[in-house]
Amino acid sequence: MADKSLFEFLHMEMVAYVYKHQNGDNNNQERGSSLSTLEGMGFRVGQGLIERFTKDTPSFKDDLDVVKFLCKDLWINLFRKQIDNLRTNHQGTYVLQDNKFSLLTQFSNSKQYMEEAPKYLAYTCGMVRGALSNLGIDSVVTAEVSVMPACKFQVVIQRS
Amino acid sequence: MADKSLFEFLHMEMVAYVYKHQNGDNNNQERGSSLSTLEGMGFRVGQGLIERFTKDTPSFKDDLDVVKFLCKDLWINLFRKQIDNLRTNHQGTYVLQDNKFSLLTQFSNSKQYMEEAPKYLAYTCGMVRGALSNLGIDSVVTAEVSVMPACKFQVVIQRS
Repeated sequence: MADKSLFEFLHMEMVAYVYKHQNGDNNNQERGSSLSTLEGMGFRVGQGLIERFTKDTPSFKDDLDVVKFLCKDLWINLFRKQIDNLRTNHQGTYVLQDNKFSLLTQFSNSKQYMEEAPKYLAYTCGMVRGALSNLGIDSVVTAEVSVMPACKFQVVIQRS
Repeated sequence: MADKSLFEFLHMEMVAYVYKHQNGDNNNQERGSSLSTLEGMGFRVGQGLIERFTKDTPSFKDDLDVVKFLCKDLWINLFRKQIDNLRTNHQGTYVLQDNKFSLLTQFSNSKQYMEEAPKYLAYTCGMVRGALSNLGIDSVVTAEVSVMPACKFQVVIQRS
């Protein structure tokens, strides 16, 4: 419980810091660059974490198997709950829905701060992308919020 | 275990980011400012954490009682171990020794990277200072490493 808030507080500080340092003029371009900074940090962390988590895991059957691993094992380890719903079109797109996403519960359960939500999701999008990347899967990960603190992560796998 | 590394990885990313963005010239003045940025983040996090941790705790007898609480309850919650040794001169100076400090174990158990150690301690110093501050105690907190990953935090209470 406790070191969960340790991570959450640090995450909020980091978001605030990155925004403060990059958004002098607060225009859209710089906003984008803060998001991508956070996404990049998440990416590297995701790579590191997945290495630890999978070291005793037998290899995966297919992409779906990998995504299921993220939804269950990784999510429980990181956020102490599973993804609530996983959907796929079986063509490389996966939608992971978390009805009570830990990094959003801290600051809102209404629509009021919806605009702020992307800031608090970029890091996690990066983490998912980093985890997949280290398992050999290139992807694009985005997040979407309709009512806080619920949130959907969309993973689109890139075929080369 | 797992969300421990979640925090540790994020902490390392944050240290790297703060240093990258503030140390264009890498001179001593800017180095100092990165340290104080990290310390400030830790300070705010410490304030937040201690509020949570102490909400069901009866009030403290004296400063020593508070410091003991940090060494035991707070440290276990944050770093999954207690402070190994606590010393005091009974005049407001406390030395908290952690023989295996979690944020140092990740990258070294030798003398090689000693110069880098302060970067990874500033945040924690701030956290301790923030926790004490929210309990009404002004302090100066510094850290010292002689052999990694052991580390001593010195707390000097400021009487006004």
